[in-house]
Amino acid sequence: MRVVTLAGGTGAAKLLRGLAACVPQRDLTVIGNTGDDTEIWGLHVSPDLDTVIYALAGTLDAERGWGLADETFQCLRAMAAYGADTWFNLGDRDLATHLTRTRALRDGQSLSLVTARLAAALGVAARILPMSDDPVRTMIRTPGGRLTFQEYFVREKALVDVVGVDYEGATAAQPAPGVLDAIRTADLVVVCPSNPVTSVGPILAVPGIVDALSATAAPVVGVSPIVGGAAVRGPAAALMRTRGLPISPLGVASAYRPWLRRLLIDRSDLACVTELERLGVQTDLAEIVMKSREHETELARRVLERR
Amino acid sequence: MRVVTLAGGTGAAKLLRGLAACVPQRDLTVIGNTGDDTEIWGLHVSPDLDTVIYALAGTLDAERGWGLADETFQCLRAMAAYGADTWFNLGDRDLATHLTRTRALRDGQSLSLVTARLAAALGVAARILPMSDDPVRTMIRTPGGRLTFQEYFVREKALVDVVGVDYEGATAAQPAPGVLDAIRTADLVVVCPSNPVTSVGPILAVPGIVDALSATAAPVVGVSPIVGGAAVRGPAAALMRTRGLPISPLGVASAYRPWLRRLLIDRSDLACVTELERLGVQTDLAEIVMKSREHETELARRVLERR
Repeated sequence: MRVVTLAGGTGAAKLLRGLAACVPQRDLTVIGNTGDDTEIWGLHVSPDLDTVIYALAGTLDAERGWGLADETFQCLRAMAAYGADTWFNLGDRDLATHLTRTRALRDGQSLSLVTARLAAALGVAARILPMSDDPVRTMIRTPGGRLTFQEYFVREKALVDVVGVDYEGATAAQPAPGVLDAIRTADLVVVCPSNPVTSVGPILAVPGIVDALSATAAPVVGVSPIVGGAAVRGPAAALMRTRGLPISPLGVASAYRPWLRRLLIDRSDLACVTELERLGVQTDLAEIVMKSREHETELARRVLERR
Repeated sequence: MRVVTLAGGTGAAKLLRGLAACVPQRDLTVIGNTGDDTEIWGLHVSPDLDTVIYALAGTLDAERGWGLADETFQCLRAMAAYGADTWFNLGDRDLATHLTRTRALRDGQSLSLVTARLAAALGVAARILPMSDDPVRTMIRTPGGRLTFQEYFVREKALVDVVGVDYEGATAAQPAPGVLDAIRTADLVVVCPSNPVTSVGPILAVPGIVDALSATAAPVVGVSPIVGGAAVRGPAAALMRTRGLPISPLGVASAYRPWLRRLLIDRSDLACVTELERLGVQTDLAEIVMKSREHETELARRVLERR
């Protein structure tokens, strides 16, 4: 069974670990968000791709939800002494990923190619595809000016008002090699419980991907990142508001219409079921807040079983 | 008293620490070798400049003679997992130096400027000047092909035969801003006990520097890196042989004629004195192998006292 997932960072990482516990990694394809890629200290950082790779390699720091477990930050401290920005925490071992990627990109390799190489080196058998090899940058419009997603989310801790969100470069971007084919030939497409606006949104903004999702014969199943009127984690609520989406599973379903067939929502959102069905989206009630590895696997099983 | 030094790496670092114990750092100018600069993992590394800066900052690893004390190597291990070359040991905190320099150079800053910034950030008051802002690369010709100096010295551990040495780019290079003026207006010029062929040689290959050394009113004083027919450390002997230089203080004096006024040699090389004087070089007998901090200071005092 070929399972194709659209993935952001932390929430996706949890569900992907669960899916990898249920199906062989080689049958798993991840289409990862690169809208929050950024340059730190002159290095190209792909936070969402790395989170996914580390999660599937079993080396993601489970508590933080980003970076490597048992990480050290010696270089970061030394960078601080040189007056560099240190709001983005790059760990010493994590740096190897960014150094390798940056060098490969400078040498003219595609992001797809170096992503595959990094994943393989860490023993990840799943296919990790960036949504595009072309630069797409999620820009957050605030009353004080435009911020990259990392500036907004990490540096400003998502505490500034958001006026709008743009996917810079998206209209000119092409899906990375394999992305459209993976969706077309999938047996199941899973939209991970990621932020619909800044994690899944940039993927959908790449021309051709929504068409492929609409055309695929595979059921497209989502897991809501919203529970009881609030995001499980992160700034999804504020960002959905700027898009006029209700902060509920209904907002998630609206963002993924008309190609979303089924949405797993939390039992506490039972009240949404009727309206979701009216939108043409089947619903499954589940415990969707993944608090343990067992929980991740259980939710993945739920996603997989009702194809 | 303005003291200007021509400096390579480890040997220079010791004498510079000694000099800094005798004169205020702000009166000290270091003209550093950049012939063994190299690119590691896509980063611009200036090994000799860094050794000098770390030595004067008091953070050089005294035992190894390169890199930072109490360094960790987490990134290096992670790079190995990605299949990167790891024969050049970049430590986690050391990486901050290379990241900062690389980014500045890519942004169009000169090597001089970023070197000054790095030194200042580490509290080094001495003026550290690269010999040139233009790329000069010391290439080692071997029977098996050409190697950069670091490939020869670190990767091959100086165990391959050397046919010749070239300073690639030297004829087109200009001395970095301040280099010629520093020599011209010095009260004393010190040639550190560095390899005459691959540490001091590249500095002398930059057009204008030998002329400035010949023209300066300041005495030019050297410390021999050769004791009793062998280099104190490193591959100086093999490299001097390719230049037809005798492996003795005489070879050192020959490499620095006619502008070297005085050479400190080891007491064990007493037999060289007559011939050195015949070459027009005054000699001082001293214990020139610096085995302790006190020793470094004592040797520096000897260099300074007999101007």
